[in-house]
Amino acid sequence: MIYIVVIAAVLSLSFAAFNYLTVKNMPEGTEKMQEIAEAIRIGANAFINYEYRILYLVVGIVAVLLAVITTWHAAVALLIGSAMSGCAGFVGMKIATYSNVRVANRARETENIGETVKVAFRGGSVMGLCVGGFALLGIFIVYMVFGIGMGQISITSASYTNMLGLSFCPFTMTLSGYALGCSMVAMFNRVGGGIYTKAADMGADLVGKTEAHIPEDDPRNPATIADNVGDNVGDVAGLGSDLLESYVGSISSGIILAYHMFSKSVAEGTGMDSVLLNKLILFPLVFVSVGLIASCLGIASLLFKKKMSDDPHKDLDGSTYLASGVTIILGLLISYFMFVEFESASLKTILGFSCGWLSAWIAAAIGVIAGVVIGILAEFYTSADFKPTRILAQASLEGAALTITQGLALGMKSCMAPCLVLGAGIILSYQAAGMYGVAMAAMGMLSFVTATVSVDTYGPISDNAGGIAEMSLLNPNVRRITDTLDSVGNTTAAIGKGFAIGSGALAALALMISYQYSYNDFNSELILNLMEPMTLAGAIIGGALPFLFSGMLIDAVAKAARKMVSEVRRQFREIPGILEGKAKPDYKTCIEISSKGAIGEMKVPSMLAIVVPVACGFVFGPEFVGGILIGSTICSIMIAIFAGNAGGAWDNGKKYIESGHIAGFGKGSPAHDAAVIGDTVGDPLKDTVGPCLDIFIKIMSTVSLVAVAVFAEHNLVDLISRLF
Amino acid sequence: MIYIVVIAAVLSLSFAAFNYLTVKNMPEGTEKMQEIAEAIRIGANAFINYEYRILYLVVGIVAVLLAVITTWHAAVALLIGSAMSGCAGFVGMKIATYSNVRVANRARETENIGETVKVAFRGGSVMGLCVGGFALLGIFIVYMVFGIGMGQISITSASYTNMLGLSFCPFTMTLSGYALGCSMVAMFNRVGGGIYTKAADMGADLVGKTEAHIPEDDPRNPATIADNVGDNVGDVAGLGSDLLESYVGSISSGIILAYHMFSKSVAEGTGMDSVLLNKLILFPLVFVSVGLIASCLGIASLLFKKKMSDDPHKDLDGSTYLASGVTIILGLLISYFMFVEFESASLKTILGFSCGWLSAWIAAAIGVIAGVVIGILAEFYTSADFKPTRILAQASLEGAALTITQGLALGMKSCMAPCLVLGAGIILSYQAAGMYGVAMAAMGMLSFVTATVSVDTYGPISDNAGGIAEMSLLNPNVRRITDTLDSVGNTTAAIGKGFAIGSGALAALALMISYQYSYNDFNSELILNLMEPMTLAGAIIGGALPFLFSGMLIDAVAKAARKMVSEVRRQFREIPGILEGKAKPDYKTCIEISSKGAIGEMKVPSMLAIVVPVACGFVFGPEFVGGILIGSTICSIMIAIFAGNAGGAWDNGKKYIESGHIAGFGKGSPAHDAAVIGDTVGDPLKDTVGPCLDIFIKIMSTVSLVAVAVFAEHNLVDLISRLF
Repeated sequence: MIYIVVIAAVLSLSFAAFNYLTVKNMPEGTEKMQEIAEAIRIGANAFINYEYRILYLVVGIVAVLLAVITTWHAAVALLIGSAMSGCAGFVGMKIATYSNVRVANRARETENIGETVKVAFRGGSVMGLCVGGFALLGIFIVYMVFGIGMGQISITSASYTNMLGLSFCPFTMTLSGYALGCSMVAMFNRVGGGIYTKAADMGADLVGKTEAHIPEDDPRNPATIADNVGDNVGDVAGLGSDLLESYVGSISSGIILAYHMFSKSVAEGTGMDSVLLNKLILFPLVFVSVGLIASCLGIASLLFKKKMSDDPHKDLDGSTYLASGVTIILGLLISYFMFVEFESASLKTILGFSCGWLSAWIAAAIGVIAGVVIGILAEFYTSADFKPTRILAQASLEGAALTITQGLALGMKSCMAPCLVLGAGIILSYQAAGMYGVAMAAMGMLSFVTATVSVDTYGPISDNAGGIAEMSLLNPNVRRITDTLDSVGNTTAAIGKGFAIGSGALAALALMISYQYSYNDFNSELILNLMEPMTLAGAIIGGALPFLFSGMLIDAVAKAARKMVSEVRRQFREIPGILEGKAKPDYKTCIEISSKGAIGEMKVPSMLAIVVPVACGFVFGPEFVGGILIGSTICSIMIAIFAGNAGGAWDNGKKYIESGHIAGFGKGSPAHDAAVIGDTVGDPLKDTVGPCLDIFIKIMSTVSLVAVAVFAEHNLVDLISRLF
Repeated sequence: MIYIVVIAAVLSLSFAAFNYLTVKNMPEGTEKMQEIAEAIRIGANAFINYEYRILYLVVGIVAVLLAVITTWHAAVALLIGSAMSGCAGFVGMKIATYSNVRVANRARETENIGETVKVAFRGGSVMGLCVGGFALLGIFIVYMVFGIGMGQISITSASYTNMLGLSFCPFTMTLSGYALGCSMVAMFNRVGGGIYTKAADMGADLVGKTEAHIPEDDPRNPATIADNVGDNVGDVAGLGSDLLESYVGSISSGIILAYHMFSKSVAEGTGMDSVLLNKLILFPLVFVSVGLIASCLGIASLLFKKKMSDDPHKDLDGSTYLASGVTIILGLLISYFMFVEFESASLKTILGFSCGWLSAWIAAAIGVIAGVVIGILAEFYTSADFKPTRILAQASLEGAALTITQGLALGMKSCMAPCLVLGAGIILSYQAAGMYGVAMAAMGMLSFVTATVSVDTYGPISDNAGGIAEMSLLNPNVRRITDTLDSVGNTTAAIGKGFAIGSGALAALALMISYQYSYNDFNSELILNLMEPMTLAGAIIGGALPFLFSGMLIDAVAKAARKMVSEVRRQFREIPGILEGKAKPDYKTCIEISSKGAIGEMKVPSMLAIVVPVACGFVFGPEFVGGILIGSTICSIMIAIFAGNAGGAWDNGKKYIESGHIAGFGKGSPAHDAAVIGDTVGDPLKDTVGPCLDIFIKIMSTVSLVAVAVFAEHNLVDLISRLF
């Protein structure tokens, strides 16, 4: 059954290649359009090349450390993981920089929304298909390389002693190493891309919109190409590798959990046989494989649709819902084939599966549904179709201060509903299938990630297409079409963000549980006890960590944005005729400022998530790290929801005013100025802080999971207490 | 030794009465001054009377419920607690409304900073002394009423069966009830006062400063009297009852913890005798009593000082440091007398006191030091003498958006340092004296609260004095003196806020530990296990609670402020000659808007903290509530620090620009406008959200502590699982 994984991966990657070539062979449009697209492409490639050089240097160092301190298996898996994630991000971004201009051109040639949507979605689907395809391909390679495929897991091989004389479970180490590789790429792509895109965006807006009063994407603004580059490196490559790592995290935590929970009872011979164990370990892999196949189906259903509806949102939603629905149905089938042979009563007593063979499927389906509901909640809080954002837009009439205040309130209040869904999801999936069920819920939520990433990537591609249309001075009709696409993209982005946070939270919790399993020895009850002073202190300090991380990211964006502001001001001042459109601005310097700012500022926050748990582990021991994980996970979930929703609502509140919904206060009114300030404040929150936190908690959990085998035995506090 | 409690209480209250009368007998100044002071006083009295009517209605209802569902002891103690806290807030506010005008008059008569400081501090000391005096008096009364004073605690009386047939430990119930009474008053005073003061402040600023460009406290602004009333109801009465409840919470959690931890081993006769138990229970009470005496000393040292220094800050700090130093020294003496008779080895084996008789004192001293350090950290992040606030002020040059962004980053980054101090405090005090040590650290931090509240209350009194001076059109020299006092008050307020959060966090943790002791039966290990799905789900939902609460508070302030804005605009429009100073504004309507807004908006958030844990307890049981407590405590600590520091830094950043520190950008410059927006955004964060969160977590813990005896046995989830 492991071959279903490789079948799904190959299917997905072939589909991606087909779409890649199809898009690339489309015409690019006018010379001016080609020129601008070329500039964006060069900027994006240059940045990603430079970023990857630093990234792979760090990955290399970590791999060597892993090989020395833990096992070489983990190091190799880390390299495979980082290669897969790196490829997905690179290919997805590459095609996005080809698609943008072709979307604009299709709009120019056909002036038809449906046709244009298809091109944008085809481009986006490459990113989505690469995420699913490369992730599963990598897991398959890891299985092959280490021969830990199905049927070959045995408890006797459960220990490997490395050159320092430390013992490890190679199974756990390999999968964790793979997940860590994916996470590291995601972290750098998200942080670097996030700083890049928002520095350019804020810099462009602060001078362009607020001071010079020229519209967005105006070719007179020197920061505008950098802004469009940012969409590709931040919102495409960053988003793709982010969800790839969530995907891998949720799969691997499910497998590790199953292994730790049940391998003991196999060894002891207490009712559990290795056939059942293997099936439990296999289940998440098979489930995501059918999810990937379902996602291909969902994507194909849109691409090969004859008659598109008038509303792109409906078509895109249709594709996602089809993918999730088929995933649930296929999931039921595989659950039946895998678990029906075991008796319900024995599943119940041995595994705590209260619903017999249906249990694992129910837990996964709860995850799918919870993911969809959390996405809808994000839409409720951030779309101008609903009350919260409309109230926010009204507050802009009273000035910038109340716009900000009301937005903060909106973001804070919006945390509760998704957390209730998460809480309910945890309790229900636990009822169905114990802790394994919680991990399956996380896995289920992410199983159709390929479909959601395709829709998410459609957004920045459309945004870029609009920018190119504006800068190439195309017929306003073209811009009208791309604007429709873009506004749909904003909604899908909000849904996607809610989804990413929800799934990230569940995946992090599953990893945290795996961490506890790795640390608690087999004979003790599984606890993470906040009545332990070490755990309690860890939880409080851990709670402050995401705040520190977020503050550093905002600072980094603000710093780079301020440099951009100075440069744009300088160009407006020193290049004569620039504002009249007679002289060409110096786009390249702005691109360089964004690149340098992002590269310079990304290192410290990216390393924080790796260094802190390891350092704390070796000093204070595993209880402290457990506390750190729980504190930072809880606070990260909250800040990410807060940041995503407040930022999204500010953005859409501004758009609501711009489209003239509040009589007497359109573009250029004081209310609009206030709304622009809100939007600018929200930018780094929703596009840098929120998405990065999602990775932050998972990378911390994965690093802890890898390192715990060492620091559980060797830490300073232990040493001191043994000395005295 | 219980009599030291009543001696300290009587000493403190007598000193308060003496200062009250001394201040009241001072001359009030010109007729205009008297008239304005009268208006402020009437407004404040009217609000507090109306607020107390609602408050005591709610207290009455809760008391009846407590008497029916738990024990009558708890109900009576609740009434005593609410009476004590209510008195302290009322008396302190009353004298503040007498002091303000007398401070202005003293400045007018003497034109001497030192003399003026003394009057303001004398007024403030009444609040401080009432906090310490009434709190301890109440505890003494509770002891007397219920005969559970020293020597009378016995394990045989540890159970009381109420009319519903439920069993309770009257000792725990009585103390928790008392703490709950204090907490409820604090919640209403803080939330009501906080909404009142910030609605008035924001309303006055939004129209006055931003639109009409008239200075603060200008008599032409109709909201200005309401603004000054707000200082008294929010920053005096609210602050006083807030710290009173922290004080009582830390004392009672220490006592309850000692009782639960050690009474079992007395009953079992395993090495612990009742003499030692009584001493452990008595220790926190005696320690805070000597702390109160030390605080009286610190206050007297300033009031009876012959030669004041030029810098009021130094004098005020001197008084606090004297109080804390004497507390530590006297604490050492009482530890010696109480514990030296027991052998170190036996203390170590029975209690886990690693330093023998010194252990409890060391833990308390760690608390004192941690409190001082956290205060200093708050000053670092919010004072314009240091880098963070200066960078923030610089960001104002780039406009409002970057001012807000940079302030958010500052607030977020500032969470880590105080959390490190808290974490270290927890670990070290645990090392010294186990969980009892953690509770002693909380108690120690608050033991000299009378000194800190006196300094804190000095701030709003000086602020009010400045307002009266401005409105009475006194000699600018007077305003200069009160401005000096006010700016010192801003620094002390920042320190006080840091201190309140730090101590609140420790007290909440101690209460949470007591909660666990009440719920876990004597025979099981003490755990709050986040691997339990109920606890985990509770922690996630609990984490969202303070965000919801904060969002609701900000919303409430914004709503009331917007009404105020409309009213001020209306008056400027409809009353001819108002801006030329020829017509008198209608102050009364503005006062009514603030009052009504505060009263209307305070109910839901205030009740949230009481209703949520009880409702969750009866539905999901004690594990879930334990999760709620940990999640909300961690997130509340972070938001409170974030809100306090971001708000303080915006405020002082604005002042930094106003005082001309950035060349070319003074009052009225675009940079100043941006800074004013930052300050306005920060207002509800630092003065409403931050302080209320502090009470929020303690009231939740106390309510849970009271109700757990019932819902641990009777809850829906239990019922369902028993049925199936």
